Amino acid sequence: MRKSIATVSVSGTLAEKLEAIAAAGFDGVEIFENDLLASPLPPEEVRARAADLGLGIDLYQPFRDFEAVDAGTLARNLRRAEHKFRVMERLGADLLLVCSNVSPDAIAGDEQAAEQLRLLAERAADHGIRIAYEALAWGRHVSEYLHAWRVARLADHPGLGVCLDSFHILSRGSDPIGIEAIPGDKIFFLQLADAPPPAMDVLQWSRHYRCFPGQGTFDLTGLVASVLRAGYTGPLSLEVFNDVFRQASAERTALDGMRSLIALEQSLRGETHPAAPTGFAFAELSGTGPVGRLLGVLGFARTGTHPTKPVELWEQGGARLLLSAATTAAAATGPALIAIGLDSPDPAGAAEHAESLLSPVLPRERAPEEAKLEAVAAPDGTEIFFCDQAWLADFAPAGPMPGPVTGIDHVALAQPWHHFDEAQSFYRSVLGLRPQESLEVPDPYGMLRSKAMSGPGGAVRMVMNIAQVGADHLPRQHIALACDDVVAVARRLRSEHPGLLLPIPGNYYDDLEARHEADPELRRLGVLYDRDEHGGEFLHLYTVTVGRVFFELVQRAGGYQGYGAANAPIRLAMQHAAGH
Amino acid sequence: MRKSIATVSVSGTLAEKLEAIAAAGFDGVEIFENDLLASPLPPEEVRARAADLGLGIDLYQPFRDFEAVDAGTLARNLRRAEHKFRVMERLGADLLLVCSNVSPDAIAGDEQAAEQLRLLAERAADHGIRIAYEALAWGRHVSEYLHAWRVARLADHPGLGVCLDSFHILSRGSDPIGIEAIPGDKIFFLQLADAPPPAMDVLQWSRHYRCFPGQGTFDLTGLVASVLRAGYTGPLSLEVFNDVFRQASAERTALDGMRSLIALEQSLRGETHPAAPTGFAFAELSGTGPVGRLLGVLGFARTGTHPTKPVELWEQGGARLLLSAATTAAAATGPALIAIGLDSPDPAGAAEHAESLLSPVLPRERAPEEAKLEAVAAPDGTEIFFCDQAWLADFAPAGPMPGPVTGIDHVALAQPWHHFDEAQSFYRSVLGLRPQESLEVPDPYGMLRSKAMSGPGGAVRMVMNIAQVGADHLPRQHIALACDDVVAVARRLRSEHPGLLLPIPGNYYDDLEARHEADPELRRLGVLYDRDEHGGEFLHLYTVTVGRVFFELVQRAGGYQGYGAANAPIRLAMQHAAGH
Repeated sequence: MRKSIATVSVSGTLAEKLEAIAAAGFDGVEIFENDLLASPLPPEEVRARAADLGLGIDLYQPFRDFEAVDAGTLARNLRRAEHKFRVMERLGADLLLVCSNVSPDAIAGDEQAAEQLRLLAERAADHGIRIAYEALAWGRHVSEYLHAWRVARLADHPGLGVCLDSFHILSRGSDPIGIEAIPGDKIFFLQLADAPPPAMDVLQWSRHYRCFPGQGTFDLTGLVASVLRAGYTGPLSLEVFNDVFRQASAERTALDGMRSLIALEQSLRGETHPAAPTGFAFAELSGTGPVGRLLGVLGFARTGTHPTKPVELWEQGGARLLLSAATTAAAATGPALIAIGLDSPDPAGAAEHAESLLSPVLPRERAPEEAKLEAVAAPDGTEIFFCDQAWLADFAPAGPMPGPVTGIDHVALAQPWHHFDEAQSFYRSVLGLRPQESLEVPDPYGMLRSKAMSGPGGAVRMVMNIAQVGADHLPRQHIALACDDVVAVARRLRSEHPGLLLPIPGNYYDDLEARHEADPELRRLGVLYDRDEHGGEFLHLYTVTVGRVFFELVQRAGGYQGYGAANAPIRLAMQHAAGH
Repeated sequence: MRKSIATVSVSGTLAEKLEAIAAAGFDGVEIFENDLLASPLPPEEVRARAADLGLGIDLYQPFRDFEAVDAGTLARNLRRAEHKFRVMERLGADLLLVCSNVSPDAIAGDEQAAEQLRLLAERAADHGIRIAYEALAWGRHVSEYLHAWRVARLADHPGLGVCLDSFHILSRGSDPIGIEAIPGDKIFFLQLADAPPPAMDVLQWSRHYRCFPGQGTFDLTGLVASVLRAGYTGPLSLEVFNDVFRQASAERTALDGMRSLIALEQSLRGETHPAAPTGFAFAELSGTGPVGRLLGVLGFARTGTHPTKPVELWEQGGARLLLSAATTAAAATGPALIAIGLDSPDPAGAAEHAESLLSPVLPRERAPEEAKLEAVAAPDGTEIFFCDQAWLADFAPAGPMPGPVTGIDHVALAQPWHHFDEAQSFYRSVLGLRPQESLEVPDPYGMLRSKAMSGPGGAVRMVMNIAQVGADHLPRQHIALACDDVVAVARRLRSEHPGLLLPIPGNYYDDLEARHEADPELRRLGVLYDRDEHGGEFLHLYTVTVGRVFFELVQRAGGYQGYGAANAPIRLAMQHAAGH
């Protein structure tokens, strides 16, 4: 039988995947859309490479959440499909996988789903394309393969059949013998995957994934309050089975456990953070030369110098960056983010609170007339300063440089994989930030876990990233600068400083234009775009990396609270392609 | 409040755990039984160290599957409890955690459970010990904390209360407000753990844990047969989302995927392995000197030499080992297992089958008069030879040395973590072995995954181990030698060659004697023991490691089919303690 494999099944860039798949003797591939979007190769080039390698493009996938929708959504979905048909024509692919709708807004009722799928099949037929409809195991209404077949039969169009996926069938315990009820010529595609036994029952969850209070989602304050109301006088005892903790330093883990209990007691007493940060005072980078040149290009100016230390102040709008002459250690890895200053209503109180939570308060040498700075070390070694306005006077600044940058939007730190839970505890209890979105982002050679946290009112936003085990690149840090016109910045930088901004592949814009009425200037300028479900918008772009650090320029509109997570795989792929 | 932590929550040996826990400022610890069993420190010494560190021993845990049993089991369980009470007296611990019974044999009915727990509490009281009864979320009949309280109240003994564990309560979605129905002085202990959201719904399973056909547990042959009967004529296409594959070499993954489809097609055609191995012909080690000395001590003799290669044959009973003069590469890591010879009814057929599954058939230089050997490379590089009897003649052996060793029982190979699935495919499809037990073993600094596979009739047994990510030691290989009297071997080796066998801690035997009527000679000689549910018995012991290799001596009785998995954590801990 002909043998195919989805590009998502192997690692690397799309070009590398095709090479490896051809070398193993496969006849064809399923092009997984994200692999195409992150590839700099236009579809025609992918088609040519596959042909040169003797590979057919047997399927393009996935097309999601199409059917069982209201009229307005249907119109948008058909428009989105037309964009995909054009991409498929360029690829030379004539079979599109449509997964059953998983949206909570999907409408029950097979007739409507069938009618809409028939419409899709008719449109597809104009392009010589057929539709393979697949029941996802977690589909909103259609989750069984026989149900998908029922809908496809109802739709009754020669260009509409089903795709069977062994995972979606067997993971639900469905009996595959029912497949024999489907005419073979209506089974348009067969995807095979095996799986270990359901990997996570409550026993597995308990034995491998527990964590310390505050690192998960349980309401332990409520539980312990009930225990205390019952009159319990015994100890609070941590019993945590966690595969990461088993491999980490016992000293750090024990200390982190103790921190979690202290924070729990504070929470039981109803104590909130005494001095939650209200903004970024500054971010400090090691290495002056290359970073200074980059800041200059971005519109920053050096506005002050520290009287006793080799530290420069660079400003633009409300964004303040410190550049510190590189130490020997920093010189080896290149520029890196070494400290963050947080505006605090009560720096001494914040430091005292940090100390109560066992954070190492850093000694600080200073001349008598200089501002006193309270600082603690974060788990990854980054110094965190609690600042009032006094620190700025030390630099005798000339006043901020005007420009499109208005401040620091967020800072993303890279955590070693075995310090992720610890870092989360630190940012939560010591800094008073609250967890926001958490996600796993595929990158070409692994997975990136990411968690965003923010202070009251979104004033301070921080993102923790860890490279999953196996990723072979150095962890990167980045500073996102808030900006009131990213498009204008992109226009200037793309023309005056070619190579400074990360290039974005055209395939990304093909997809963006399928999803939104996107301004064609975004494509021309390589600006990334995201929109949330409430209509909030996010425009952003990235500089190349200098040492371990890169900059992002971001523009939020309409109350957008996220971080452009949907675009992260593109960014990671392009950073890999750029060789850093 | 007093703050405690279970020793299982941090990494290291028991002594290291106590140090780290004290340094973090905890007041007490829960001693997790496995940590004690794997520790060379007797309970009195653990007690003294904890006291020196200012730590109380607040709880000893867990005691499992005690209540709701028949009369015979109750008597055995009370005897087991008496052993634990004595250990607790030596530790200075006065609170024992009893988890609700999870055995399928547990009897429903609160009265019987309560009555038996009261009996346990009475016995415990004679030792000044109290019992904290905890509902495990996956308990057979008692899985809710209020149910545990109902049983404890029914038992009505002052020395019996409940232990509350936030994980077991909140993971089930139970409301903690019910805790206030329990008198505070009957809540004997409170264990705290947080957890991320249920980590494995079917979506997570699908997106991260799929694998190629034959690497999991789905019946894909059956599914594809149904698809073919339906008349499908399209491709077989692999769609596998797997975090490990994302990080592994694309070339190897693609090749492994292709192998899985070829094996699936063979299975669809009803083809079985044409020449499944019937036994071990030999195992070959690199490095002659240190391994030869060890083999001599174990009772092997050099019985032959290869006419043209620097390879020696060593024999005892039916066990044949080849020692090959170390290559430069092998000299760096010390002795290692480099090849395995399998008795094959049709070596050429086996090699041809391996080749059809894309295994690299190895070129073999040989003199014209020498036996032809068919060999393929396993994924970890180990050479696998398919042998008939002819190979032995090359060595002109003097005849096997008599001795207690009768043959090779099994061989354990260490796999790099990202080749585990690939190795499983190889052993299954290329060698015709079938998966047996699969387990995860905690070692002091991580987790070890292990999978046993065996040929028809248990003739060939192989174990694949991978160190989980984060384990910092070199992967070890071992050869288990079947033996008809392990106790006699131990007696001779312990007296004549002190230091040759891995020492086994006394705490292991305290536990063994609680579970079984164990021969006291096992303790004296440091022999490990396991018994299966059908009464099959397993006695075994380990040598120290030479280079990357160690030997195990095993004795099976009563149809025992396992590998002494229950003892693996002890072995790993003692290997760590021995510094290798």
